[in-house]
Amino acid sequence: MIKKILIANRGEIAVRIVRACAEMGIRSVAVYTEPDRYALHVKRADEAHSLGSDPLAGYLNPHHIVNVAVETGCDAIHPGYGFLSENAELARICKQRGVLFIGPSAEVIHRMGDKTQARQAMVEAGVPVTPGSEGNLSDVAEAKKEAERIGYPVMLKATSGGGGRGIRRCDNEAELERNYERVISEATKAFGNADVFMEKCIVNPRHIEVQVLADSHGNVVHLFERDCSIQRRNQKLIEIAPSPQLTPEQRAYVGELAVTAAEAVGYENAGTVEFLLADNQVYFMEMNTRVQVEHTITEQITGIDIVREQIRIASGLPLGFRQQDISYRGYALQLRINAEDPKNNFLPSFGKVSRYYAPGGPGVRVDTAIYTGYDIPPYFDSMCLKLIVWSLQWEDALDRAVRALNDMRLQGIKTTAPYYQQILQHPDFRSASFDTSFVDQHPELMQYSEKSRPEDIALAIATAIAAYAGL
Amino acid sequence: MIKKILIANRGEIAVRIVRACAEMGIRSVAVYTEPDRYALHVKRADEAHSLGSDPLAGYLNPHHIVNVAVETGCDAIHPGYGFLSENAELARICKQRGVLFIGPSAEVIHRMGDKTQARQAMVEAGVPVTPGSEGNLSDVAEAKKEAERIGYPVMLKATSGGGGRGIRRCDNEAELERNYERVISEATKAFGNADVFMEKCIVNPRHIEVQVLADSHGNVVHLFERDCSIQRRNQKLIEIAPSPQLTPEQRAYVGELAVTAAEAVGYENAGTVEFLLADNQVYFMEMNTRVQVEHTITEQITGIDIVREQIRIASGLPLGFRQQDISYRGYALQLRINAEDPKNNFLPSFGKVSRYYAPGGPGVRVDTAIYTGYDIPPYFDSMCLKLIVWSLQWEDALDRAVRALNDMRLQGIKTTAPYYQQILQHPDFRSASFDTSFVDQHPELMQYSEKSRPEDIALAIATAIAAYAGL
Repeated sequence: MIKKILIANRGEIAVRIVRACAEMGIRSVAVYTEPDRYALHVKRADEAHSLGSDPLAGYLNPHHIVNVAVETGCDAIHPGYGFLSENAELARICKQRGVLFIGPSAEVIHRMGDKTQARQAMVEAGVPVTPGSEGNLSDVAEAKKEAERIGYPVMLKATSGGGGRGIRRCDNEAELERNYERVISEATKAFGNADVFMEKCIVNPRHIEVQVLADSHGNVVHLFERDCSIQRRNQKLIEIAPSPQLTPEQRAYVGELAVTAAEAVGYENAGTVEFLLADNQVYFMEMNTRVQVEHTITEQITGIDIVREQIRIASGLPLGFRQQDISYRGYALQLRINAEDPKNNFLPSFGKVSRYYAPGGPGVRVDTAIYTGYDIPPYFDSMCLKLIVWSLQWEDALDRAVRALNDMRLQGIKTTAPYYQQILQHPDFRSASFDTSFVDQHPELMQYSEKSRPEDIALAIATAIAAYAGL
Repeated sequence: MIKKILIANRGEIAVRIVRACAEMGIRSVAVYTEPDRYALHVKRADEAHSLGSDPLAGYLNPHHIVNVAVETGCDAIHPGYGFLSENAELARICKQRGVLFIGPSAEVIHRMGDKTQARQAMVEAGVPVTPGSEGNLSDVAEAKKEAERIGYPVMLKATSGGGGRGIRRCDNEAELERNYERVISEATKAFGNADVFMEKCIVNPRHIEVQVLADSHGNVVHLFERDCSIQRRNQKLIEIAPSPQLTPEQRAYVGELAVTAAEAVGYENAGTVEFLLADNQVYFMEMNTRVQVEHTITEQITGIDIVREQIRIASGLPLGFRQQDISYRGYALQLRINAEDPKNNFLPSFGKVSRYYAPGGPGVRVDTAIYTGYDIPPYFDSMCLKLIVWSLQWEDALDRAVRALNDMRLQGIKTTAPYYQQILQHPDFRSASFDTSFVDQHPELMQYSEKSRPEDIALAIATAIAAYAGL
């Protein structure tokens, strides 16, 4: 069994992993760059080591991180999500240096990270993919020919892309010509790989993804699906488990597809198979070879601790359950509270949290690294808190989410919380009838009036007086 | 459906009820006495009304409270637990004034509150009771005769008692003589009723209680049991659901007994049937005709929101589920964090909370009314926070409880939290082998050394400097 883990991440996911370690009797080592010196993951881990003064470079340097792991006697590294979590190089260096990487092998990361290779693997496994180019495109002429064959609209996608970046929709040949060089340029800059391919654009699909767990003994199970259709610019805002939009037959079908996909590539550890659902057709989109931001809602409905399972699997232990042992109950929603101003085009709103009070009571879970007085640094992701709610019934879960948002106090920065209040009360959302176009189709939901609570006004006055008095 | 509820309580249970109201679209009215002017239940409710300056009198005056309910247009009163929750007079006045009382009828409250009447009802229903006197004792001579018949040790109990008060154990005739007048005196002072009765003392039993829900259409279900054996001086400290000490047969048996008991008295709303378990025998102890402090852990394992069900039942709605629809999953523990110093004979430790940071992450729920800067008033119960943890497996739930306690920051007062860390790591507790004598049998667990965190030391220094500088 693993005894000491270096957590190669920051923010709430680093705190989440510290907690799993603490519950399993495993020592945790945090790493941080200077802006994170007072971050919660640093305070809560058993040890903490600086990665230098540059805000980002340290978190993105696999050699440095593995060195710290070796020097501090860690037998494993947990990469979290983002940063190096889907970097095959980190997995490779870990293997060379005798440190366990808590995730799949470098080969699987590489293969699923290369979107054309991943597509090919799925075609071979019999998992439906969207119509698209066979492999990468060689030039704009081939792109045009393929688009004619597939039919507009099409998507140009960076082969190494992910997380919603390096993707452009083309509705006609003129747009295709314009976007072709742009995507290549974006792909080169963002992923260091100029390869692009083409897929048919599935218009206004639902985003359905399936959580899988696979151990090193060949056991693969799924933990049902999540509905992540509430997105803005390909960034998920609200996730739901299970999807309130699937029939039991569709649920069983996507679950089986995900297990087939994972088995086909010899997957190991936790992963997510993402699908698009449109016109009663399911299409493989991509596989994320890491724990996801929204793993929490799957934990709420199944009771299975996914980070714990990741660590157990990396330790070589077999899964403690079979597919038929896994059930789900109720509905869980995750609201990603971002430090952004929805009324101002979602402009980031970093700065000091003047007051934070966690919501509580039945069916409420919070994963965050913020605290009163914490200064949210401007170098990283704007997500500052995950509010997770659960209830037996769909409508009750929505009402609980509204209540929990009202319960929470998060002041000093603008957040997406009031915008989510609008979404939660929209009839299309409540009747579970929405797709990935929901956010774009309802710009009116961003026009809310912010209610001031008496306590907010008192706090503002106190702050003004303190400033005036020079305190 | 009920539209507006007056919450005749304070502290965490008042906040809990405000939350249920908010989720159900019901307007909530808080009441408070002056020491509670800045209490969380006052801040969070939709309206708040003062009950006067005396800390306790307002909360204990049923006429005043019903008047406020009528004046503010409430159609129902939720009494919470403690205070007037088992006061038949409040239920009676509510009925007279046309306000719904969220609980059983005045008659049932009275009958189950009178321990000898409750015993008699159980005997008639075929629910096993401990051997004891038939009805109240008329004098010490009868008491001695009964004790001879039943066999020492015996318990002298106030007929109107409850919550562990008005109870004395007598191991021999000399003790019986000494305690007889004392219990009468206590009973008169605490409950305004001098009646006492006698029961055989079940030595070192397990405390097992069953949550029931009964609607106004004759449907009665149980939500499985809770194990509340970890007590000190009859006050529960840690509660567990389900009991890790019961066999499936015992679980089914106590569940059926509780439903039988509720049906026998025409029970309506949420209630709890408490049993003692010793030598594989189950004995009815008492029925609590209100929501209990530890209802939370039953919510965690069954997913059923008990306060919501209370409100639905009082509204006249039928239960939305049958017995066979109810299942439980995993284990939940509730740790009652009291403002007391275990190292100093559990002396109350009221005062200002200098810092509070809620624990979070998977499987953690917090019900509390405290916040940073809150001054815990000395007039009320010392319980200041309920930490509830859940996990699929018993051992994992214990590890999660330890982690969550470490996660929490609660400074400025002494609490029972470090003592619970000791209990959670004791082999007898972990192996689920404990009874109501556990706390008394392990005084060594109160001798822990408190670890100082660097941040605690910094805070203490800052406070000292501020005091010195006269800030």
